[in-house]
Amino acid sequence: MAPKKICVIGSGNWGSAIAMIVGTNAMKALNTFNQTVNMYVYEEIVDGQKLSDIINNEHENVKYLPGRKLPANVVAVPSLENAAMDADILIFVIPHQYVKTICTCLSGLVKPTTIAISLIKGFEKTESGSIELISHLIHDMLKIEVCVLMGANLANEVADGQFCETTIGCKNRKYNGMLKELFETPFFRVSIVDDAETVEICGALKNIVACAAGFCDGLLLGDNTKAAIIRLGLMEMISFVNLFHSTSRLSTFFESCGIADLVTTCYGGRNRRIAEAFVKSAKPLAVLERDMLNGQKLQGPITAEEVNVFLKYKNAEERFPLFTTVHKICIGTIKAEKLVDSLRDHPVHQLGLKSNL
Amino acid sequence: MAPKKICVIGSGNWGSAIAMIVGTNAMKALNTFNQTVNMYVYEEIVDGQKLSDIINNEHENVKYLPGRKLPANVVAVPSLENAAMDADILIFVIPHQYVKTICTCLSGLVKPTTIAISLIKGFEKTESGSIELISHLIHDMLKIEVCVLMGANLANEVADGQFCETTIGCKNRKYNGMLKELFETPFFRVSIVDDAETVEICGALKNIVACAAGFCDGLLLGDNTKAAIIRLGLMEMISFVNLFHSTSRLSTFFESCGIADLVTTCYGGRNRRIAEAFVKSAKPLAVLERDMLNGQKLQGPITAEEVNVFLKYKNAEERFPLFTTVHKICIGTIKAEKLVDSLRDHPVHQLGLKSNL
Repeated sequence: MAPKKICVIGSGNWGSAIAMIVGTNAMKALNTFNQTVNMYVYEEIVDGQKLSDIINNEHENVKYLPGRKLPANVVAVPSLENAAMDADILIFVIPHQYVKTICTCLSGLVKPTTIAISLIKGFEKTESGSIELISHLIHDMLKIEVCVLMGANLANEVADGQFCETTIGCKNRKYNGMLKELFETPFFRVSIVDDAETVEICGALKNIVACAAGFCDGLLLGDNTKAAIIRLGLMEMISFVNLFHSTSRLSTFFESCGIADLVTTCYGGRNRRIAEAFVKSAKPLAVLERDMLNGQKLQGPITAEEVNVFLKYKNAEERFPLFTTVHKICIGTIKAEKLVDSLRDHPVHQLGLKSNL
Repeated sequence: MAPKKICVIGSGNWGSAIAMIVGTNAMKALNTFNQTVNMYVYEEIVDGQKLSDIINNEHENVKYLPGRKLPANVVAVPSLENAAMDADILIFVIPHQYVKTICTCLSGLVKPTTIAISLIKGFEKTESGSIELISHLIHDMLKIEVCVLMGANLANEVADGQFCETTIGCKNRKYNGMLKELFETPFFRVSIVDDAETVEICGALKNIVACAAGFCDGLLLGDNTKAAIIRLGLMEMISFVNLFHSTSRLSTFFESCGIADLVTTCYGGRNRRIAEAFVKSAKPLAVLERDMLNGQKLQGPITAEEVNVFLKYKNAEERFPLFTTVHKICIGTIKAEKLVDSLRDHPVHQLGLKSNL
């Protein structure tokens, strides 16, 4: 078989970090992968130069992953069509609000044998007033197999080669060997499970919990309260997966995509950081996002809103007091100080995990 | 029925905090509890005065929980026998190395209808070269029902009334109502499960993982690595419970005693703090314990040693690389820098949770 052509769609902080890994792995697996890895770059002008030119000349994404070198075989391509042309492997790593546009552009260009791996956190709102998974949206629009990769993977630390784990959700075992070859390194340990929907939903929902953790930090509530918020958030994640998609397995929540990613995000991620600043500064989230994130998008409040759409659709808001309260705090209808009051009589205190399974 | 007499055995940081809760709750439940709550105090001289006198005059444990007032109905008693006389409820909250001595003193004095609640973290080494649970030791020595209370409960924050959760493991449901009345407050939420052994083992093992988290912090390995350590630690906790005690339920690890306590301890606890200092200062653990803990005992290294005794007994050290490595780092046979290398090819990366269940 011909070596597979890889295209990374996205070149933000995480997109650039994952391009470092797959670029390096492609060079090591001459027979499996084409040696050139395309990286689609949404063109911007940085200090008077095109970002794609900077990346191709200096092998560094100076805007989104400064200070780390990309392998020379990662080539920035500012045209989506050219980047994805003939790709056998598409790695989606863009903010979730752009997926539909990207897939519309790719529709008809992608081979039916291509496999996509989505690293995207979030949901897509549907016309029927509910939500659907990003992986399902990609599958429906491009008619290709889609798996997901999620885990406790803050991009800068992955780029620095700090040891971590990740989880790939893939329903078709025939891809497992290729996926390990593509993503695993001595410092980036890959576990593959077939409960792909749970993996993906965990990646989206953890950002809501991280907002609650950030509010908790902003209110100086301490470690015990934060641990309770993380636990109750995890319980709502489990309930939500079972409400949204009835076939999840509890063991998946023990993978890196579950508790590990939740913990990292609640201690080190940007949703936590902005939510903390929201409480301490009393500035609107949009202002903090603009001032503190250097053009990156905040996923937690958007995901909280999408999840709220679904909970209303299912008439289940009361069973998810943490998710519901985070949404209300983000849109300003209740104060962050009310967060703990909403958790004092949480349904799981009466019913435990049994209520959700 | 006569109101039940409560005795808290122990008056350290956590003992004093829990005495605040049960003292307050006893006053609210006139029919259920005797209004005086005895607290056994191991007598010390603080600034020329007996600690028990200070507590009874100033209603403050100035040494172990300074700055917080105990309810006036909590009475410090320096004689164990007098404190525990006629008690219906014994709350054990002492370092685990003193349990045998305390129970030897109490043996024969305790009514057969008395119930004990153990808040003690750790194991007891047996003469046969294995280990046993502290709750089983208390049960065997005093011939009374023993349940356990564990959770994400850093003592100072509980004493400050910060919202948190806790887990009680109790096999006999007839006590559930009384236990809620005794321990639950608007800021201290109690869940009761009957999988008591898992609750207790979680409370002991998390201190080993916290040492690993502290080494990770001392080595500046970042949030991703710390999340991986916490997750792999949790996986070893699950494996260990199943090796030690075959009837655990996975759902118990989602209670406060499981992931929540693990997270709090790995971010805010003293085992983490001392382990970090161990890496950064290169001083022996015993020196750091003396200099940094104000007379409190460090449980993680002792528990790591006890667990290692059991793993050797079961010929299972290789299946627990994190627990084993923490023990070896604590006793100085390997360097903390080797921690991550021991986790790179962790058994769960190949087998996942299935290997443990």
